[in-house]
Amino acid sequence: MKRRDLIVGGIGAAGLAAASKTKAQKKDVFKWKMVTTWPPNFPGLGTGAMRMAKNIEAASGGRIKIKVFAGGELVPAFEVFDYVSSGGAEMGHGAAYYWRGKSEATQIFTTLPFGLNAMELNGWHYFGGGMELYRELYEDFNLRPYPAGNSGCQMGGWFKKEINSVNDLQGLKMRIPGFGGEVLRRNGGTPVAMPGAEIFTALQTGTLDAAEWIGPYNDLTFGFHKVAKHYYYPGWHEGGPTLECIVNKEAYESLPKDLQTIVDIAASATNDSMLAEFMARNSFALEQIEQMDDIKISPFPKDVMDAFKESAEEIIGEIIDKDPKFAKIYKSFSDYKKTVEKWTKISEYALLQNRYE
Amino acid sequence: MKRRDLIVGGIGAAGLAAASKTKAQKKDVFKWKMVTTWPPNFPGLGTGAMRMAKNIEAASGGRIKIKVFAGGELVPAFEVFDYVSSGGAEMGHGAAYYWRGKSEATQIFTTLPFGLNAMELNGWHYFGGGMELYRELYEDFNLRPYPAGNSGCQMGGWFKKEINSVNDLQGLKMRIPGFGGEVLRRNGGTPVAMPGAEIFTALQTGTLDAAEWIGPYNDLTFGFHKVAKHYYYPGWHEGGPTLECIVNKEAYESLPKDLQTIVDIAASATNDSMLAEFMARNSFALEQIEQMDDIKISPFPKDVMDAFKESAEEIIGEIIDKDPKFAKIYKSFSDYKKTVEKWTKISEYALLQNRYE
Repeated sequence: MKRRDLIVGGIGAAGLAAASKTKAQKKDVFKWKMVTTWPPNFPGLGTGAMRMAKNIEAASGGRIKIKVFAGGELVPAFEVFDYVSSGGAEMGHGAAYYWRGKSEATQIFTTLPFGLNAMELNGWHYFGGGMELYRELYEDFNLRPYPAGNSGCQMGGWFKKEINSVNDLQGLKMRIPGFGGEVLRRNGGTPVAMPGAEIFTALQTGTLDAAEWIGPYNDLTFGFHKVAKHYYYPGWHEGGPTLECIVNKEAYESLPKDLQTIVDIAASATNDSMLAEFMARNSFALEQIEQMDDIKISPFPKDVMDAFKESAEEIIGEIIDKDPKFAKIYKSFSDYKKTVEKWTKISEYALLQNRYE
Repeated sequence: MKRRDLIVGGIGAAGLAAASKTKAQKKDVFKWKMVTTWPPNFPGLGTGAMRMAKNIEAASGGRIKIKVFAGGELVPAFEVFDYVSSGGAEMGHGAAYYWRGKSEATQIFTTLPFGLNAMELNGWHYFGGGMELYRELYEDFNLRPYPAGNSGCQMGGWFKKEINSVNDLQGLKMRIPGFGGEVLRRNGGTPVAMPGAEIFTALQTGTLDAAEWIGPYNDLTFGFHKVAKHYYYPGWHEGGPTLECIVNKEAYESLPKDLQTIVDIAASATNDSMLAEFMARNSFALEQIEQMDDIKISPFPKDVMDAFKESAEEIIGEIIDKDPKFAKIYKSFSDYKKTVEKWTKISEYALLQNRYE
């Protein structure tokens, strides 16, 4: 797993000298690569990762220089994890649940259907034991992970027809990846995995009947509203997914202490600003969508939500039975969830009830 | 307003030399003071400010050293603003609404009754125009302000008797400062301003009938549950108050660019981690409170909330009429509020409805 040669290759002239010492010097310049899972300049997610890289450069006075790569530019999006793990790049930005093929437990650090919202999940990560488990899990992969952004609550997607009950899901071809897709499948639908850029045409040609993407800000850009008129809220499957920054462990350890702290706090600052960006920009985009006459924005029917929830619990039970690491981490998450749900109910939720009812 | 001598006095040996140059050198060491409005080691708020100072020291490799002072240690809590403005200390941590005597508009940057939650408010600050207005307002005071923490939704307080209607508020002596206190007064109560440390005894001796403080985490420590049995949710007056870091402008400008960025991202990282801490620790504390047999936790009656909301709107109208700066900033806040409330309704709120109903 340790590929020192690649890591040294990732460091500039001054860094090469440093790599042969036991401790890096303050004057060393580290030339790093950040590979991401995002399309070029992808609004919110990709631009958030770029802001993080810029902050690290500026805060380090140029002692860390980071070249950011969109998915596919240096390695395909879904090879980011392996590439950073092996030291091909020092850093990556994406989402932990993309790596469920490596470990089912990665999903817990991003989001689970009917899971937590962004504020609640941050509580678990930083003060409820999540980060320790996150680091422990990624230790085996030579990586140091961070929560580094959140999209906030995602939307349930665009549908060409109205969904009035579970019956309307039968045979429905929907772009919805991963765990959410499996929930749909167990309720009669056909989940399709498809990159964002292909969704519009697939909806137009009838390859898809429905598609979930992110939320108003990103959905509007893609123009899904032009081909699918029913927009469902909220994204039961992703209530506040945490995005992830991963750093190759040896690259991190090769940094002097001050630069390590800069990376640490830059991740946390990204976690702060990205969620704020989605809150604001989703609001502005929703305002535009609401002004369109022919768009119907409505909640999923209760029986659909109940059926989805049952399936989600069933799937989690199955993973627990076969994967002890998932079981251990889910236990921590689930204990925290029970506790924080009581607090949210009498604070945030009651506050919003006061506002809306 | 510019008191260069004081600022130079706040910088160490190397810094003294730097102050006479047009641009600080990378090797300079800045010895800073951070004065705060918090009691020593105050959980969540004070400790969050201390964590911010530590992060800046570590990220700068010791080039900025920050000595943190609790309220009253160097200057009284409510002189923090003036002291940092004049350069007595380079940095402060507190809450903008403490400075309403300087400008009514400061309150908007912290929280307003029936205002926004933490996520929504961060959206305004960073991406809805709030920060620009915040900086503009504080420019006159020689200060650079940052959102640097959030307590999340605060609780409505501890009451010795049950509140069933507005009638029960008549003559009620309650510890509730500022805007919230004025709302209570207009509904027949007697607001009392009192430091946290005095509340317990005042409740015990009957000087107070009720008191709001923060939320379960901080309230439990003070033991209010031992003398007031009715705990009301949620804090209609503070739905997610933003805490504040202020930096003396000349002190900030004397820093080289890299250290300026470190201060910037450290504030944002504090904004991220403090809210997470309150989410987690309020949950854990609530669990303990719920296990106490004799405590009744309930929502305020609807007619009380309606009356409070009407008074709050009345007060805001009065301030708008007499204070053009408040009016300008409130316009930006209020336009954003209308927009973000629509988004929250179909995302976060719908998500929680799904969970709780």
